[in-house]
This record gives sequence, structure tokens and C-alpha cells, in this order.
Amino acid sequence: MSVGNVSKRILLGRKLRSSQLGETLLPKRVALPVFASDALSSVAYAPDEVFIMLAVAGASAYAFSWWIGLAVAVVMLTVVASYRQTVHAYPSGGGDYEVATVNLGRNAGVTVASALLVDYVLTVAVSISSASQYVAGAFPLLIGHEVAVAVVAVVALTAMNLRGVRESGTFFAVPTYLFMLAILGMCGYGLLRLLQGDLPMAESANLQIDPAPGWEGPLSQIALTFLLARAFSSGCAALTGVEAISNGVPAFRKPKSRNAATTLLLLGLIAVTMMMSVIVLANEMSIRYVDPHELDRLRTAAGSALPAGYEQHPVIAQIAAGVFDHFPPGFYFVLTVTGVILVLAANTAFNGFPVLGSILAQDGLAPRSLGSRGDRLAYSNGIVFLAAMSIILIVVFRAETTKLIQLYIVGVFVSFTLSQLGMIRHWSAALRIEDDPVSRLRMQRSRAINTFGLGMTAVVLVVVIITKFLAGAWITILAMGGFFLVMKGISRHYALVEAELAADEADKVMPTRVHAIVLAAKLHKPTLRALAFAKATRPNVLEAIYVSVDPVATNRLLDEWDERHIDVPLKVLHSPYREVVRPVVDYAHAIRTANPRGVVAVFVPEYVVGRWWEQFLHNQTALRLKTRLLFSPGVMVISVPYQLRSSEIAREREDREARRVHAGDLRRGRVRVGSDRQIEP
Amino acid sequence: MSVGNVSKRILLGRKLRSSQLGETLLPKRVALPVFASDALSSVAYAPDEVFIMLAVAGASAYAFSWWIGLAVAVVMLTVVASYRQTVHAYPSGGGDYEVATVNLGRNAGVTVASALLVDYVLTVAVSISSASQYVAGAFPLLIGHEVAVAVVAVVALTAMNLRGVRESGTFFAVPTYLFMLAILGMCGYGLLRLLQGDLPMAESANLQIDPAPGWEGPLSQIALTFLLARAFSSGCAALTGVEAISNGVPAFRKPKSRNAATTLLLLGLIAVTMMMSVIVLANEMSIRYVDPHELDRLRTAAGSALPAGYEQHPVIAQIAAGVFDHFPPGFYFVLTVTGVILVLAANTAFNGFPVLGSILAQDGLAPRSLGSRGDRLAYSNGIVFLAAMSIILIVVFRAETTKLIQLYIVGVFVSFTLSQLGMIRHWSAALRIEDDPVSRLRMQRSRAINTFGLGMTAVVLVVVIITKFLAGAWITILAMGGFFLVMKGISRHYALVEAELAADEADKVMPTRVHAIVLAAKLHKPTLRALAFAKATRPNVLEAIYVSVDPVATNRLLDEWDERHIDVPLKVLHSPYREVVRPVVDYAHAIRTANPRGVVAVFVPEYVVGRWWEQFLHNQTALRLKTRLLFSPGVMVISVPYQLRSSEIAREREDREARRVHAGDLRRGRVRVGSDRQIEP
Repeated sequence: MSVGNVSKRILLGRKLRSSQLGETLLPKRVALPVFASDALSSVAYAPDEVFIMLAVAGASAYAFSWWIGLAVAVVMLTVVASYRQTVHAYPSGGGDYEVATVNLGRNAGVTVASALLVDYVLTVAVSISSASQYVAGAFPLLIGHEVAVAVVAVVALTAMNLRGVRESGTFFAVPTYLFMLAILGMCGYGLLRLLQGDLPMAESANLQIDPAPGWEGPLSQIALTFLLARAFSSGCAALTGVEAISNGVPAFRKPKSRNAATTLLLLGLIAVTMMMSVIVLANEMSIRYVDPHELDRLRTAAGSALPAGYEQHPVIAQIAAGVFDHFPPGFYFVLTVTGVILVLAANTAFNGFPVLGSILAQDGLAPRSLGSRGDRLAYSNGIVFLAAMSIILIVVFRAETTKLIQLYIVGVFVSFTLSQLGMIRHWSAALRIEDDPVSRLRMQRSRAINTFGLGMTAVVLVVVIITKFLAGAWITILAMGGFFLVMKGISRHYALVEAELAADEADKVMPTRVHAIVLAAKLHKPTLRALAFAKATRPNVLEAIYVSVDPVATNRLLDEWDERHIDVPLKVLHSPYREVVRPVVDYAHAIRTANPRGVVAVFVPEYVVGRWWEQFLHNQTALRLKTRLLFSPGVMVISVPYQLRSSEIAREREDREARRVHAGDLRRGRVRVGSDRQIEP
Repeated sequence: MSVGNVSKRILLGRKLRSSQLGETLLPKRVALPVFASDALSSVAYAPDEVFIMLAVAGASAYAFSWWIGLAVAVVMLTVVASYRQTVHAYPSGGGDYEVATVNLGRNAGVTVASALLVDYVLTVAVSISSASQYVAGAFPLLIGHEVAVAVVAVVALTAMNLRGVRESGTFFAVPTYLFMLAILGMCGYGLLRLLQGDLPMAESANLQIDPAPGWEGPLSQIALTFLLARAFSSGCAALTGVEAISNGVPAFRKPKSRNAATTLLLLGLIAVTMMMSVIVLANEMSIRYVDPHELDRLRTAAGSALPAGYEQHPVIAQIAAGVFDHFPPGFYFVLTVTGVILVLAANTAFNGFPVLGSILAQDGLAPRSLGSRGDRLAYSNGIVFLAAMSIILIVVFRAETTKLIQLYIVGVFVSFTLSQLGMIRHWSAALRIEDDPVSRLRMQRSRAINTFGLGMTAVVLVVVIITKFLAGAWITILAMGGFFLVMKGISRHYALVEAELAADEADKVMPTRVHAIVLAAKLHKPTLRALAFAKATRPNVLEAIYVSVDPVATNRLLDEWDERHIDVPLKVLHSPYREVVRPVVDYAHAIRTANPRGVVAVFVPEYVVGRWWEQFLHNQTALRLKTRLLFSPGVMVISVPYQLRSSEIAREREDREARRVHAGDLRRGRVRVGSDRQIEP
């Protein structure tokens, strides 16, 4: 097959693949729920965090919640506007990592990658912790067992993902639309009741909130600013997941970029509507919500302490309880759907983490083996790592969303900010080569939007770092630093190895002589096969080697050798200490030293078994020998396998496994083919 | 090198080895302590157990302790007499396992092996638990932390043995002689003070013992018999370790058998003397000793309850405290030396366990890889397994010697009994071919002694099983059954595999054609080397294979291939799902299917790295590919290693390691060369 043919074949292969892909492109109505679960689900906890932060200064501070909500909405719409530019500029689904790498260089890319890795872990931890609070709200029996519920949920998600169960577009669409229906329906009905004047108060409406120690009395300007900044930072949790669509452009139907941009805008509007509606209703229903650790700051209207065992339910749960006070199924519907959407949001991290790992691996920032898809092992490693890290976070922070949220938002805004900066560079570079005034105008407009976005996200990032550093953001920053250093280290290592391995004309020189050694432990089928194979390679010298640890067995083998008229000489290496590996290694080394331009070919007969426990009973010495021989220069190690009947079990299992991974990949392709950078060349 | 030469070389090798061994043979004065620590150390806990069992019926039952002691002494001397016969019959150091296997067949041998494996674990657990009680006796601060002390001791022993620290004869001799000096000196001095009439009472002398519930009032004949039988069973713990010398005959100076027999007798006499002296002194000093869980059965002379925090010290500690009441250093000396000898006893198990594993592996009863000595990995596995099992026992039984002893003695007497039975068969077989009347008379005498020994040990075994079954012996029997089944299963598996692998003339047929494939991931040194090596094997077809997952990289490689004028065609396999392993496996399979009498030789370029973490960054795909290819019939897998500079680190480490193991083996040879079955052909 000539090189030209080969190229054609590649093209053909790719064509075939592209045509397959055509069938799986997503219309907007499916794309929205597929990419929205993460972003929309944050309405389940973001408003709560705003109220908790404001409550520090007492219930009167709740008056500011409107303003906080509006500020978050402005940031949200700015970010949406910015990403709409990204979507047009990178129709291949660049993602923050690629935008930063391409436009700002490797270090920025690695920084974004670190932030994304940390964020995947936190998405799982926060979403599942929040879900466990909703579950406990619906089933009071589980109150106090949130950590266990959350850990069980993560383990279940892990098992599902390890088993290769992949969600299809429909799998996403139904609960996401149900969630929109539930929240918007609840808010709509609540607002209707508000207009009719029969909106009931929340269960916590009559409670008083003592300000936290140090926040009593009229606040100074600085204290108030800090308080509002902190509440705003927490509210910005609503923005997590907005960037998902920009990764998924290739999965959209044509015109891809325009459809993606429209979907993004839609997502932003729905998210803002949901959040603002929740805040409005919470205010109208006089919800009282404080840090779950400081429930003693709540008092009854009469000023006395709360009864022991008072349970504070999430804001959405309190609203649902009030709005649907005559219709309990509505309450349970809202809680259930919210729990489900939070679990779905966590699941997106389980999908995204290994994909990011694979991209990083291809860029030499992660172990290269993670880069091959369909590779069950690498994929599993990523999933297990993500699960382990998030379980640690859940356990350490007792599944308390409020505490985890302190860690969450730094990473998101680091990647937002660097991504915007990258986009500005991108437009500037494009403008330098663009002459068409219409295009230039559009680019300048895009650059202006991204510049505004950069300013906004950078300010938010600074605010977040200042207000949350001690509360937990330092952990995130530390973790990001750790990931950063590891990735840089890996990259440096690969570069060093590549330099050491750079090809050289001298490397093409053929060895002058092949001295073949067949290891004979016994005279059985594998040995005979190895001898036959070795002969077939026509070496210059061929001999069999036996390591003698027992004279009786040695003599038996020598006799058998003669009886069977084996025409290959058998050399016995004496091993007084029953060592097998060392004498062979030394012998091979000696041959090579005597003839440094030749090669030693060591043939190792092996028999292949199928059951896991059989591994412990066979080939251990062969394995050690092969490993050890790899360190000897000028030695080739040839495994000549003999397949025992039981090996078929393993082969069939492998084949089944491979087919399943393959099928899983096809199905997965339906939903997030966009994050697969291979689609558009 | 001809076959004849080879045989000579083997003989030469063995001769050299035997001459080396001559220098390390042990005189009796060194052999005694080397083999005695396990047997002698049991005096530290066996008398205590007798007193505990008798105390069930109140202090008055202590009157029977003399008789129990005498009964144990009779069994001890009988066993010694029996093993003196074994020593003469098996100067090669047969050991119970070999005696049983040779004379009674494989099942008996496997039974003995199971018993020995369980006993090694229990030797560690019992000795270390007892040692921790002595340590707590000397350092009252540690009272209540015996489990922690014991676990730390096992971990320390494990680390020591994993590091390859081996004791020399002297290492054993000094503490063992000090222990004899301490116990015999203490007893001698105590008896002297007894004669002079100034032997003080023990600290516990004035206490009263309530009989255990159900044992009050005058005992029935049956109850009394059961009580004494149980106390006797516990006392038989003194016999553990007596068989050690019979394994070690080859390590003695000539006349080996006679010297070993003399040492054995000496050991028996010293052990009996120690035990009886301790029992006599304990009685004279009115020691009161009950199950540590039933301290509430102890009352003061006035009949009131004991003060809280009363600590019961081991019998030897109480005797030492009394005898050396004016000389505290004597007390501390006795306790320290006793603790040390117990740890040494545990260490003998750490030495013996892997050796037994290696013998079992050679007989196809354990994974074959355990059979190669100097094999650090196999050796380590045995040590870690032993440590883990004994730590589990220590933790489960809270380091309480009294409870562990219930598990201990069954295994010992199973192997005693089967060994005696084997010896009877041995003599009967020998008598059948012996004509010389003098020899016949000697053999008949030996057989009579072994028959008496069999009767004695069988009775004790039955007594032990009856009296201890529910108290814990069932665990031992279960564990022995487990080991038995595993060993039989392994043996059956090896037999099946051997049958499947039996050589056949057809297996000598040479493949007609070699189709060589070189995997090219990049065009670097390893690939060029693999190409050169592959060419040197002169295959019928040679081609390079590249699995394409990315068109850019593919085109780059194709260009490079042309630029460098590589004269091997490069074939590109398209992999739409970024899988690397499967396309290669499928391709190799297709070639083989097209030509079933040919062979596919897959050359895998690998680069060898040295640091542990580098393993994660390289060759993972190569490893998976090689593993997967082993399952394909008619495929040879050739690793062509390229050694990176960092690989030297690993090679040097391996060499150092190998040298150390080797040196360790030499040193170890000094002390228990006898258990190495290779010495006398």
C-alpha cells in the first residue's frame, strides 16, 4: 500500500465518520437541556447562599437581595454575551482551555485546565451535597444523614459511569424540561397568588434573625460593602456551567454557531428568570434562612429560642411548601425534580472529566495513556479519581453546600477571565489580517463585548478571592497550584524524553548478528512452539537455556531433550541459590558484551490463562524476567504465547468489553461529540 | 557445549557449593540456641495457662498443677524420644511435611502442611501477645495498650525481615542462653530460698479465687476429669517448636544425626526442668492466677472485692518479683530476657514460613513462583501474608494469650501425630528389606518408640480437640481445611495444565512464514531500533504499522517517513474512536487467518524509564497491547527496549537489591540451611 493510498484511506475513513455524525446532530430543543442541566441546577442553591450571607446582618439586610440578584443577572448576561462571541469564533467547540492555550500560551492554558479540573470535582461535591439536602427535605427520616446520602449518590454515579451507562439526549431532556416546568410553574403560580393577594407566608416568616457577632447595630460603609460583596460572590455560583455550550458547538445542527448562540442566550434568560423569580418570591414570602451552623441565631417572633429539632429547608423547598400549601403533590414534584437535576449536573462532570483528561493527554499535560479513547482503563481511572476527590470533599465538609460553595466559584472565574482575555487577543489578531470593513466592524464589536466581559469577570474574580479566601478559596487555589505543577512537570518530562529519543541516522544501522536464546523451563508445548518460532526467525546462533536449580529435574530434562531429538543445543545455567532471573540476565549480558554490534533475542515461552486467579499460578517468573531484561541494552524480548483452553474465557470477555465500550462511545457521541476535538479538522 | 559437559558443570557447581557449606556447620553449643528459642519460650506462657484453667474450680485445684506439669513433661519426653528416631531416619532434615508425604501419601502431607502454615501464624500471634504482656509488666505505662504494642512488634519484625536482616547463630545464641540463665537462675535461687525457709509469698498469695459459675462445690468425677484434661491441653503449649531440630539435621557437625539427637534430648530436658521449676515455685509461693477477663473472681483475704486497677502479672513475673524482692535488677532482667526470647520465637516463624512456601511451591501445592529462592517478591509475599494474618488474630483476640492458646495446639499435634504415623510406616518399610539382625533390632526399637509416641500424641490430639473445640480450635480446623482445599486446588490446576501442555511431535513443526509488524507511534530512536532489529530477523514480510487517530499527526509521520528514506513500508490503520490496541490486534489476527501456518511477529518499541512515577507516563498502551496480543494464536510479541538515561537508576537499584538478597541468602544459610532441601541429594 503506497503512501498516497494511505492518505486516501484516512480521508475515506474520516468521511465515513463525518457522515455518521450527521445523523446525531442536535436541534436546539434537545441541545438546550443537554447543555443546561449544570447551569440551571445552580438555582437550587445560589439564592440560598445569597440569603445566608445577607442574614449575617439580620433579616433587614434581605432588602439587598434584589440588588444582589440583579447584579448576578448582569454578570450572567455579560458572560452569556461574551461566550456568544466565543461560539462564533470557535465553531469547533474550543472551550476555555483551548481559547486560553491558543491565544495566551501554554501557561494560561494549563492554569485554565487546573481550574477546570478543580471545578469538575466541586461540581460533583456541591451538586450532590445540595441534592442530599433536597432529598432530606422530602424524606425527613434522612435528616442528619446527608453525608451518607451524598456519598451513596456519588458511589452510585461512579458505578453507573464505570459500567459505561451513558445518557442520551432524551435522558437529559426530560428531567431538564421538567425542572424548568417545576421552577417556572411554581414561580408563576406563586406570583399569580401574590397578585391575587393570597400568597401565604413561608414557614420561617415569623422568625427573627439575630445578627452574627460583630455585625450588630448599624453597619459601617466598609462592612456593608464587604457583606454585599460576599453575598454577590456566593450568588455568582449561579454562573457555573454556562460555558458548557461553547464546548459543544459542533453538536448543533447547522448553522451551528448561530444555533449555539441562540441556545446560549435562551439558557441565560431562563437562568436569570428562574433566579430572580425565586428571589422575589422568597422576599414576598418573608423567608428566613441562615447558616445551618448558626440556627441559634433564629428566634421566634416572641423572641424566645427555637424548639429543638427545628429543621431549615432550602429556599425552593420553603417556597414550594407555601405556594403549594393546598396541593402537596406540587411540593414533592418540585423537590424531586430539583434533586434529579442536581444529580444530572454532577453527572456532566463525570462525563467531562475524562474528556478533559484525554485532551490534556494529547497535549502532553497528562499521562499519555489517558489520551486514547475507548480505553476503558484510562477512562475508569479518571472517573474513580473524580469520585474519590469529591467524596473526600463531601466528607470533610459534611455535605454542607454553604461551605463547599466557598471553594467553588474561584475556579469558574479564573477560567472565565482567562478565556475572555484570550478572546480579546483572538479578535485583535484577527483584526490585524482582516480588511473587509464589515467583518472588521463585527470583530471590533465582539472584542468590545469580550473586553467588557473581561472587566466584569476580573472584578468578580477579585471580589470572590477577597471575600472567600479565608473561607475556603485558599484550598481551591492550592489545589489549582498543585494540578498546575503536576501538569507542567509531566509536560517537561515528555519534552526531555522526546529530546533524548530524537531519531538519528546512526539508529538505522542493522545489528550484525542475532543470537537467539530460548528459555526452556520444561519440554512442553510452549517450549516446542518457542523453539519453532525462534528457528523461523533464522538467527545466527540459536540455543536453548535451562536454569538448573535441582539436579534431578535437570537430568530429566536433558534426557527428554535427547529422546525427542531436539536439534537445538540445550545449555544449562547453574543457579546455586534457585534464582532464575539473574543467571539469564547475566548470560544475555555476557553474549551482548562479547558482540556489542549484535543483538540478543530472548524467546520466552508463556502459556496464557484466562481466569484471574490463574495469573497468580503462572508466568510470574516470566513476567519478572521480561521486565528485568528490558533494562539490558541490545536485548530483544520475545513472548511466544501458548493459549490454554481457559484463555478463551478471557479473550471473549475482552471482546465483549471492547464491543461495549465501542457501543458506549457511539451513544456518547450523540450528546457530547462536541467536546471531542477530532470532529472538525 | 555438549550435554556431557553440562552435566559435569552441574556436578562441579554442586561440589563447590557443598564445600562452601562445610564451613558453616553448627556445633551443638550453637545449634541448641538456634533451634531452641521457639520451644523454650513457651515456658513463658504454658504454666500460666495451666493455672488459669485450674483456677476455674478455685485455688484448691492448684494442687493438681504438679500432676499436670508431670503429664506434660511425659508427653514432652515422649515426643523428644520419637523425634530422635526421625533424626536418625531422615538425616537430610525431613521435617514433618516430608515424613508424612513420603510415608503416608500426598493428602497426609498436605494436611501436615496446612497445620504448619496455621501454626506459623499462631506462633507469631501467641509469642508476640505474650511478649507484650511481659513488656507491660515491666513498663506499667503500657498496661491496656498490649494490642498496640503487639501490632507494632509484628510490624517491626515484618519490616526487619522484608529488609532482609537475617540473624546469625550468635544472634540467636546470646539471648537464648541468657533466657536459660535467667529462668534456671531464678528458679535455682528461689528453690535455695525455699530450702532456707525465706522464700517470700507472691503478691497474689493472699487472694481468694471464687470458682467460676457452675464449678462451685465439690466437683463430679466427670467435671474434674474435664477440668484436668483442659488444663493439660493448655500445658501442652510447652511442646510447640520441639520439632525444629528434626528439620535442621544437615546444619549440624558430623556425626550429624547423633549430634542432633543429643541436642534434642538436651532441649527436652531443659524445657522440662524449666517448666517444672516454675510450677513448683508458683505453688510454693501460692500464686493466684485467673483468666484476665474474670479478675472479679479474685477477692482479698478478707473476702472483699479487689481494688480497681488491680493488675495480674504473668507467673514468671510474679515469681521473679518474689524471688528477687531484694534485688530488682534480677526482676527486670528476667522480664526483659523473656520478652526478647518470645520475639525471637516469633521471628523463627518469619524465617520458616517462606521456606515452607518454597518447598510447597516445588511440590506444586503453592504458586510456583514462590519456589524460586532469592526471589525477593515471592519471599516478601510470604512475610506480608504471615504478618497480616497474625495481626488480624492479635487484634481480634485483643492480644490475649489465653484465647489464642485455644487455637494453637491443635495444629501442632496434628503434625506430631501424622509424623509419628509416618515414622511407623517408615520403619515397617525398612524392616521389610533389612536382613541384618542388629539393624532390625534397632529399627524395631525405633518403631516401638514411634508407636508409643503416636499413641501419646493421638490421645493428646483428641483431648485437645474435645476440650478446646468450642473455645477456638474450630477456627484452626477451619483454617487448616481452607489451606488444604486451596493447596489441593492448586495442585489439581497444575496437573490439568501439565496435561494440556504435554509435548507432541506436531509441535516441532516450524511456521512456514514470518510476517513482521513494527508498531510505529512516532519516528524516534526506539522505532528505528525496532525496525533495525526486525530487519535483522529476516522476516518474509516486514512492514511498519501506525494507528491513526489524528490526521495531522498522521501526515507528519508520513512526511518524516519519506524524508528519512525508511525502506520499510508504513501502513496506516484508521481508528475512528482513538483506540490503539484493537486495530492492531484485529490486523494481526487477519494476517494470521489468511496464513494459518505462518506466524505474526509484532515488534513493540518501548522505552525503559527508571523512576517509579515515570511508569505512569509511558508504555501503558504498549503494555496493554502486549497483554492483549498474548491471547491471539500464532502471534509473537517482541519488545524492543530502548533504555533512557533514567533507566540506569532502576538497573543499579535492581543490581544492588540482587546483591543484597544474595548476601542475605548466604548469611541465612548459616542458620537454617537444613530446611533447604537441596543440600543433600
